[in-house]
Amino acid sequence: MKMMQLYAALKSDLQAIEDEMARSVMSEMPLLSETSLHLLKAGGKRIRPVFVLLSGKFGEYSLETLKKVAVPLELIHMASLVHDDVIDDAETRRGQLTVKSKWDNRIAMYTGDYIHAKALTVITQLNNPRIHRILSSAIVQMCIGEMEQIRDFFNVDQNIRTYMRRIRRKTAMLIAISCQLGALATNAPAKISDALYRFGYNVGMAFQITDDLLDICGTEKAIGKPPGSDLRQGNITLPVLFALQDESIRGALLDEIAAIRASEGPVDSSPAVRLVRSSRGVQASEELADRYIVKALKALEALPDLPAKRNLAEIARFVAHRSY
Amino acid sequence: MKMMQLYAALKSDLQAIEDEMARSVMSEMPLLSETSLHLLKAGGKRIRPVFVLLSGKFGEYSLETLKKVAVPLELIHMASLVHDDVIDDAETRRGQLTVKSKWDNRIAMYTGDYIHAKALTVITQLNNPRIHRILSSAIVQMCIGEMEQIRDFFNVDQNIRTYMRRIRRKTAMLIAISCQLGALATNAPAKISDALYRFGYNVGMAFQITDDLLDICGTEKAIGKPPGSDLRQGNITLPVLFALQDESIRGALLDEIAAIRASEGPVDSSPAVRLVRSSRGVQASEELADRYIVKALKALEALPDLPAKRNLAEIARFVAHRSY
Repeated sequence: MKMMQLYAALKSDLQAIEDEMARSVMSEMPLLSETSLHLLKAGGKRIRPVFVLLSGKFGEYSLETLKKVAVPLELIHMASLVHDDVIDDAETRRGQLTVKSKWDNRIAMYTGDYIHAKALTVITQLNNPRIHRILSSAIVQMCIGEMEQIRDFFNVDQNIRTYMRRIRRKTAMLIAISCQLGALATNAPAKISDALYRFGYNVGMAFQITDDLLDICGTEKAIGKPPGSDLRQGNITLPVLFALQDESIRGALLDEIAAIRASEGPVDSSPAVRLVRSSRGVQASEELADRYIVKALKALEALPDLPAKRNLAEIARFVAHRSY
Repeated sequence: MKMMQLYAALKSDLQAIEDEMARSVMSEMPLLSETSLHLLKAGGKRIRPVFVLLSGKFGEYSLETLKKVAVPLELIHMASLVHDDVIDDAETRRGQLTVKSKWDNRIAMYTGDYIHAKALTVITQLNNPRIHRILSSAIVQMCIGEMEQIRDFFNVDQNIRTYMRRIRRKTAMLIAISCQLGALATNAPAKISDALYRFGYNVGMAFQITDDLLDICGTEKAIGKPPGSDLRQGNITLPVLFALQDESIRGALLDEIAAIRASEGPVDSSPAVRLVRSSRGVQASEELADRYIVKALKALEALPDLPAKRNLAEIARFVAHRSY
């Protein structure tokens, strides 16, 4: 089954989640509804809701219950994007103006806070404090990951392990718990929710590595923002770190990164991007992403042989080879 | 009993809460621990923890349980202050440099997000989803209140009702649930938690009105920031709204507010402050705060005659007549 067919098979449940997201961010205050809906309309892959739904197939599947997991997870992800855009001074995301650029930084900050708070009102409808605990711990990790990213801006001496720890916190944890909570909310056994957590964690790592690769190798049309955005803001990602290990490129790349850092106003990261593309960094990153996918597929072995198991495997393979 | 004596009587439990706050914001990331502890060290009245503890006296008092209510409530309040300071571009608070001024806006935004997330990890230790629901709804209201404040910056045509709705969301709700959750967490009957909620709500309204009055009438030494800060950032508070109803002052005050709005860079709000001070706005605001205190005291009538009841009444009376 291809990805489009998988989304088609989940379509009505995903649409229910989409509707619930829109409903849940409505407020008595028109401006907050407007900024939130602007974000929702920009869309996204909705990978967290997809994982919640598929993981729920291993328990007592209930859309009503799974909505209360999927909606908050996706909203928390979106809230973090709004705050990211303030930090990154990003003008567009997914080809749409960001909240901070359509409105302003203050409005973006409180829109993020608000969407985050609304997510909590949804998840707390579940009478399962353990789920609340798992979610709140993951949010803490995300915040630490975001702060580590700021701390490590333009740090060309960071090692691969620093990068891995950061993306684990920033991205992989929330995807891991999307799978885990889909299982827990539907009363699947611990063995299953544990396996799904490991699956989600490894897919999440591959997902972020691929995201970082796309920022180097993708086209503006495909990724919805100009390539090289990470480098422009000082975010040193895996392909760049691998490229810096390539002695024939290191010197020139360090000069380009230093020039980006020193520049004020609009800055062109395309020479740096070209250097990274020409290095072994791209292939090395792809290989590492693939290794995470292998681990993710391995985690699936513990699961019973349901169609959802094959779907998860298909998504895992897709994640590492997507072009958007 | 005077306020100092009351704090002295609660000292060991408040210290336990203070310690737990410090412990709970520690992280693997030194920068986040540092920014968070910087905030904690600036101190504060800790009115929410005091209310949680006193409200717990009407149930099965347990410091261990009440800590898990008081710590998150105070942390959520603090997280909102860090984000406020970004919005307000505030240099100092309680006489200390703000996070945004000691570090920067990005660090302040994520410090707020982080403290907020840590608060959730503490409250979710309680196996009472109803408490989680009440807290998350209150956080949503706070966000709406913050956004309303931005929307209403420099809006001299807003009416008193708009102001009241804003401070209810921004301040009074969190104080109301501090009282309510202290009772709920210790299994007090609904009649008691309801009465405490009403008490907290009315004290909270009086508290914010008094805060806004202090920004007009206080000294920099007493309030830890230059007076007139609200007006400088465009926040039109109750004494200003009442002053604008005073025809002998309205024209001059409108001119001053327009001048503040038009100015770029540092701006002097003291002429506007003097106009408000000379108007009937100060007395009218004090009277309104007093009316809320009367309502708060009325709510206490439903409570059994414990020492904590007298303590709550003393705090209520103090709140409306404090000078810091």
